[in-house]
Amino acid sequence: MKKTIFVILCLVISTFSQTTAPTPILYSEQTLNDAKKLQKSSLESDYAYRQTAYLCNNIGARLTGSKQAERAVEYVAAEMRKLGLDVQLQKLTVPHWVRGEEKGELLEWDGMANGYTRNVVLTALGGSVATDPNGLTAEVIVVNNFEELNALGKEKVAGKIVLFNVKFDRQLAEQNQAGAAYGQVTAYRGGGPSAAAKLGAVAVLVRSAGGSQNRLAHTGATRYSNDVPKIPAAAVPYEDAEIIAHLAKTGKVKMKLTLTPQTLPDVISYNVLADLKGSEKPDEIVVVGGHLDSWDLGTGALDDAVGVSMAMQTLYLLKTMNLKPKRTIRLVAFMNEENGFVGATTYANESNPEKHIAAIEGDLGAGHPIGFIFGGKPEAVKFLSPIASILNLQGAGQIDARQSAGSDISTLSAKGVPTFEPWYDTRTYFNYHHTAADTFDKVNPKELAENASVMAVLAYGLANLEQPLPR
Amino acid sequence: MKKTIFVILCLVISTFSQTTAPTPILYSEQTLNDAKKLQKSSLESDYAYRQTAYLCNNIGARLTGSKQAERAVEYVAAEMRKLGLDVQLQKLTVPHWVRGEEKGELLEWDGMANGYTRNVVLTALGGSVATDPNGLTAEVIVVNNFEELNALGKEKVAGKIVLFNVKFDRQLAEQNQAGAAYGQVTAYRGGGPSAAAKLGAVAVLVRSAGGSQNRLAHTGATRYSNDVPKIPAAAVPYEDAEIIAHLAKTGKVKMKLTLTPQTLPDVISYNVLADLKGSEKPDEIVVVGGHLDSWDLGTGALDDAVGVSMAMQTLYLLKTMNLKPKRTIRLVAFMNEENGFVGATTYANESNPEKHIAAIEGDLGAGHPIGFIFGGKPEAVKFLSPIASILNLQGAGQIDARQSAGSDISTLSAKGVPTFEPWYDTRTYFNYHHTAADTFDKVNPKELAENASVMAVLAYGLANLEQPLPR
Repeated sequence: MKKTIFVILCLVISTFSQTTAPTPILYSEQTLNDAKKLQKSSLESDYAYRQTAYLCNNIGARLTGSKQAERAVEYVAAEMRKLGLDVQLQKLTVPHWVRGEEKGELLEWDGMANGYTRNVVLTALGGSVATDPNGLTAEVIVVNNFEELNALGKEKVAGKIVLFNVKFDRQLAEQNQAGAAYGQVTAYRGGGPSAAAKLGAVAVLVRSAGGSQNRLAHTGATRYSNDVPKIPAAAVPYEDAEIIAHLAKTGKVKMKLTLTPQTLPDVISYNVLADLKGSEKPDEIVVVGGHLDSWDLGTGALDDAVGVSMAMQTLYLLKTMNLKPKRTIRLVAFMNEENGFVGATTYANESNPEKHIAAIEGDLGAGHPIGFIFGGKPEAVKFLSPIASILNLQGAGQIDARQSAGSDISTLSAKGVPTFEPWYDTRTYFNYHHTAADTFDKVNPKELAENASVMAVLAYGLANLEQPLPR
Repeated sequence: MKKTIFVILCLVISTFSQTTAPTPILYSEQTLNDAKKLQKSSLESDYAYRQTAYLCNNIGARLTGSKQAERAVEYVAAEMRKLGLDVQLQKLTVPHWVRGEEKGELLEWDGMANGYTRNVVLTALGGSVATDPNGLTAEVIVVNNFEELNALGKEKVAGKIVLFNVKFDRQLAEQNQAGAAYGQVTAYRGGGPSAAAKLGAVAVLVRSAGGSQNRLAHTGATRYSNDVPKIPAAAVPYEDAEIIAHLAKTGKVKMKLTLTPQTLPDVISYNVLADLKGSEKPDEIVVVGGHLDSWDLGTGALDDAVGVSMAMQTLYLLKTMNLKPKRTIRLVAFMNEENGFVGATTYANESNPEKHIAAIEGDLGAGHPIGFIFGGKPEAVKFLSPIASILNLQGAGQIDARQSAGSDISTLSAKGVPTFEPWYDTRTYFNYHHTAADTFDKVNPKELAENASVMAVLAYGLANLEQPLPR
């Protein structure tokens, strides 16, 4: 048994295979057997799928501060209470930004007919300020990066709308490097408006930070600097970016932009916490979670009803199978991941990190998992190998060791808590992410169950570790 | 040579291979050699691609009656005059329908939060009447076909919004039977509003008649009966149909629908005709064409800038290569295919069908062609075999013999004119057709050139036939 594990360890994590010291007893036979049973049940269960359906179809979009986000808090709390868990609502003061009217029209371009305007599809970036209610009209200039913008200087940028035409690398995403592809373009969504405002621009458009080629605008939070005026900012789909860039090559492009979002006063919201108390060390905690809020364009299925639902399924199965982990397994349905991070920050600030043995989050969709991402000390990886070998039975045994895993749990990671996330197939994730097409139908029930199984097996294994992970 | 042709004939069109009579001389050696040169040039040319770019990116959507449709008429006429062709504008009186505001909101459903509404993506069907400017509010009932609607009867339908939740068969489309898949659902877009109005419904929603799963609503013309009230009608994307159907299973779904389209007075528009006069029989005509108008949501790239552009390329190459067909080859850029068919009807009414040897139209996108569709007498097929064998050099030699080919040229087909259309790969065509995502970037330049080659080789061959096709 140990030999097998060691061989798998060598195969799976060659970077850590130098150590040849005898592996200590990490998990009891009982734990490993129970974990396999949990895996089987997880793969067969449709609980997570039904929860995802309710969160997306019945509750719908769950933007922080909205009535539907409140409904989602109540719903998850009620479902967890039904299981007999100890449920707490962790109070938060969250931002309340609401989308208003959003409209783009080209007024002038090479090829226009007099008296005719043409529609530009766009959507306000999260947090954007509004234009005048009657819109603003200006010439659009197109840049491919910050260097091009800065080279133009104040003289050419002042009074203009700047389009950051930065392409999402679909080929990189198709090699399952979607996160890297996303990372390359989000700097413009976040920092583009203030960079352009510094040179006197009156508004910013960014090419959508995703892979869609179906006229879908991709929202997401922007970040204003305090030292320059806040200017309205919207994302245009791939197609509209291509058209405007084409037209700007041969003539002047003049556009009217109307955005009427509002930042309303902060409101009270909650993280939902639900504990299945540990049988031996109830004060030591393994977190399973996802974020309950979503953007408002779709119904937040892949981002992130699935993450919350797989955590809910983990607790549902443990309860219904009467499995009693030694440590507490806690569901955390985080609020406000998308536009403020208040839930993640508050949770970490109000928790004792020393008592958090591990945290697992799902927040990159629900594509077939090939293993899990581990964020923590390299010397901890060998502790995970028996779990990986169980997950390998479903083709999900690889370990991708990084600095940190998960989104909301990065605040725990910063305090030394080992973090985990299923290692998804994310090739198509950014085709839907933050768009109107992130809806329930995009979730494959079999693959969701596979991810729920990764989360459940990891959680159960970590909660029963004979000795805590090195940290 | 003849033997080769006969073998190909047997392979390609086995249904017609019974005839063993010696094939008469159909095309001169010169014609066949020139057709091969034309094929080579067509495959290498980017003329059609550049024309498509201008029509889509610079001119944009070309809905009948719009200023941009006028611009398109002027543009194509000017481009053809540049080639030294004899250009005529055929006057038409066309409808002028304009899209207004369009908004859908769920007001009540199972899972709602008080005071919260949720957005339904939708788009008015072409020709739809308007709701009250402040919208109409009613319960939504969901039916899967006309039988279910009629079984509900007046009592359950009166005062309601009816959603025809009829699924587009993506699997059928993926087997390159997209036209059949489309045909199965368009009856609801066309006839749904009046069928529901007959039972007292106040508005109709139809599930989009296409394969998109990217939150795209699919417009297209509806047809009102004269004997029932006209009620507003809109298409919802696949996703919204799924959500509403899901919600209607467990509770009442109440919706507010606002549509403000207008049918303005008819306007004057034109078919663009451009003749390359035949060297021997100038009064005999082979038509090459597509339709110049498009829906207003995208930029009408696949439907149908590509069809017009491949016809333009045919004439461009014949002129620049100095090829002189015996009969006249005429470009017809038809107006108003989408919502009235005035261009097609007028052209057929004002033409002498006897003098039309053949008509070729491209109107199903520009996917890789595997041959061509022929609409005409079965005994004509063997006349086409030498052309098919040239097209076979580019993998486009198959003949699909039907009753009629093409859309606008169906009016000529009805008068006995043999009709043709490239036989496309249409597997993804209806994912974009009539949606906001039918934009230039969806056109593959290589495949467009392949289709332009099919049109050019067919046109040149037919214009040089030693004897006309049986009809």
